[in-house]
Amino acid sequence: MSLTVVGSIAFDAVKTPFGERERMLGGAAVHFSLAASFFTEVRPVGPVGDDFGAEQFEVLEGRGVIVDDVERVEGGKSFFWRGRYEYDLNVAHTEDTQLGVFAEFEPKLSPASQAADTLFLANIQPDLQRQVRSQCTAARLSGLDSMNLWIETAKDSLKAAIAEVDVLVVNDAEIRMLTGESNLARAARAVMDMGPRAVVAKQGEYGAALFTDSGFFALPGFPLEDVRDPTGAGDSFAGGFFGHLDSVTEITDDELRRAMGYGTVLASFNVEEFGTERVARLTREEIDSRFEQLRAMTQFEGPVTS
Amino acid sequence: MSLTVVGSIAFDAVKTPFGERERMLGGAAVHFSLAASFFTEVRPVGPVGDDFGAEQFEVLEGRGVIVDDVERVEGGKSFFWRGRYEYDLNVAHTEDTQLGVFAEFEPKLSPASQAADTLFLANIQPDLQRQVRSQCTAARLSGLDSMNLWIETAKDSLKAAIAEVDVLVVNDAEIRMLTGESNLARAARAVMDMGPRAVVAKQGEYGAALFTDSGFFALPGFPLEDVRDPTGAGDSFAGGFFGHLDSVTEITDDELRRAMGYGTVLASFNVEEFGTERVARLTREEIDSRFEQLRAMTQFEGPVTS
Repeated sequence: MSLTVVGSIAFDAVKTPFGERERMLGGAAVHFSLAASFFTEVRPVGPVGDDFGAEQFEVLEGRGVIVDDVERVEGGKSFFWRGRYEYDLNVAHTEDTQLGVFAEFEPKLSPASQAADTLFLANIQPDLQRQVRSQCTAARLSGLDSMNLWIETAKDSLKAAIAEVDVLVVNDAEIRMLTGESNLARAARAVMDMGPRAVVAKQGEYGAALFTDSGFFALPGFPLEDVRDPTGAGDSFAGGFFGHLDSVTEITDDELRRAMGYGTVLASFNVEEFGTERVARLTREEIDSRFEQLRAMTQFEGPVTS
Repeated sequence: MSLTVVGSIAFDAVKTPFGERERMLGGAAVHFSLAASFFTEVRPVGPVGDDFGAEQFEVLEGRGVIVDDVERVEGGKSFFWRGRYEYDLNVAHTEDTQLGVFAEFEPKLSPASQAADTLFLANIQPDLQRQVRSQCTAARLSGLDSMNLWIETAKDSLKAAIAEVDVLVVNDAEIRMLTGESNLARAARAVMDMGPRAVVAKQGEYGAALFTDSGFFALPGFPLEDVRDPTGAGDSFAGGFFGHLDSVTEITDDELRRAMGYGTVLASFNVEEFGTERVARLTREEIDSRFEQLRAMTQFEGPVTS
């Protein structure tokens, strides 16, 4: 099986109460790819500038990520994001965004990327998401992330993109904003009426909830005493989620739940250190061990009277 | 087994986007008692004015709540709270609070209330909580709720009260505020260093988390498409939690987890209608049925490689 992801491949400058980095590897497609690499063959699609060097490629290739569709634009600059987090690590304050080579990005997928069994459209302009979606017609499963900016400035285009995927994975506030419905269960149903058969509501430290036709499932965030940098947590979640689903024979409700567990676990490792530092040296054994811990934290016995 | 709870017994005026009530039965001890009444014998302790009549007593007695320690003050007025909720039902906006007979309240517990196996100190001034605590020396299990007001105005007294109970049950923001620690896992540990052996962090629609020496457990809120009035959700949670624990032979980790489940279920019924309307006509069968549904929403299979 194989997985294609389109999204930002970037340099991040991040400051949190626990430290800072001036220029580190980041971007949604990077965090997603590293997380998904523990489960399947991953191909990130996206442009970088010639400031993107061997050191950055090595982080991806070190995890077996296939970088053939990372397009290196001579004379261009890679996407750059600068943000800071204060006391409340759930809220990122963006200080600078430089699109660089992303401003002129026209996705052209290689035959191998086009043939992917699973496709994830990370948070980019929805028309670009649709261009990529139309090139991956063989995908068994497709997912999409977005953000408040596109809900505000490109809502029709975003709704058309959402209609073309199986799973919407966004923050719960964005589900409310997109649908104009304050009740999350109703908002998720409104999204499913647009096309997707599942909605994942990311809830920061509170975890994540899954809505499908057949029901509801939710997991808390994995409790950590040391969270150093939340950047990329949502993308790592999506990487664990879709990575696991790409690897299974059949996408059942049980596997969707397991995927929620793997997403939660990958997000939790991601935030323990800055950028990609922790996930880059993670092992599958550590993942499954924490998965089992998470499971132990959420199981309980039936009602007294049963 | 038996349970004593001290706290407000009140009239509430509430407005939400889904309706309003000008004067309905409310108060922490009322919501708690009704929820706990499905599990054990409950005695609320607190004063009411002579505006508190047969209709209000009947709601409590209809659920078997023992009202001997509800002190009727002639010529007094019952505690009154007026609040409204807007688009975000997680946030209550208080418009008026009239202490009434609560201003002069001096808790004097009957021998039956003093002999309770379980004691819950709902959110009142911490010195009052300590007075009640000192009268219930036989309790096998004790719990306490509080609020930002007491953290700001009576922190030392509140800390002394917390040191004297087994379980602190407050909102997660209050745990952070009380300890000055932004990380919830660290904040919960700081509370346990004050004395309690368990901390329950209430998280509104996101559910609740349990911290003990032996670990962590969390449950999502029960997903509802119709939430009409969140008033009393936290007290109903506590009522289900301590009600169940009062009813068990031994307070094990498994029973604490089940208690989290019953708390979640009682809170979910409470918010479906205004005030006590839904819980007053609830049945134990409905509770256990929803408990089983909640369990089905949180279970998942082990790691792929195990």
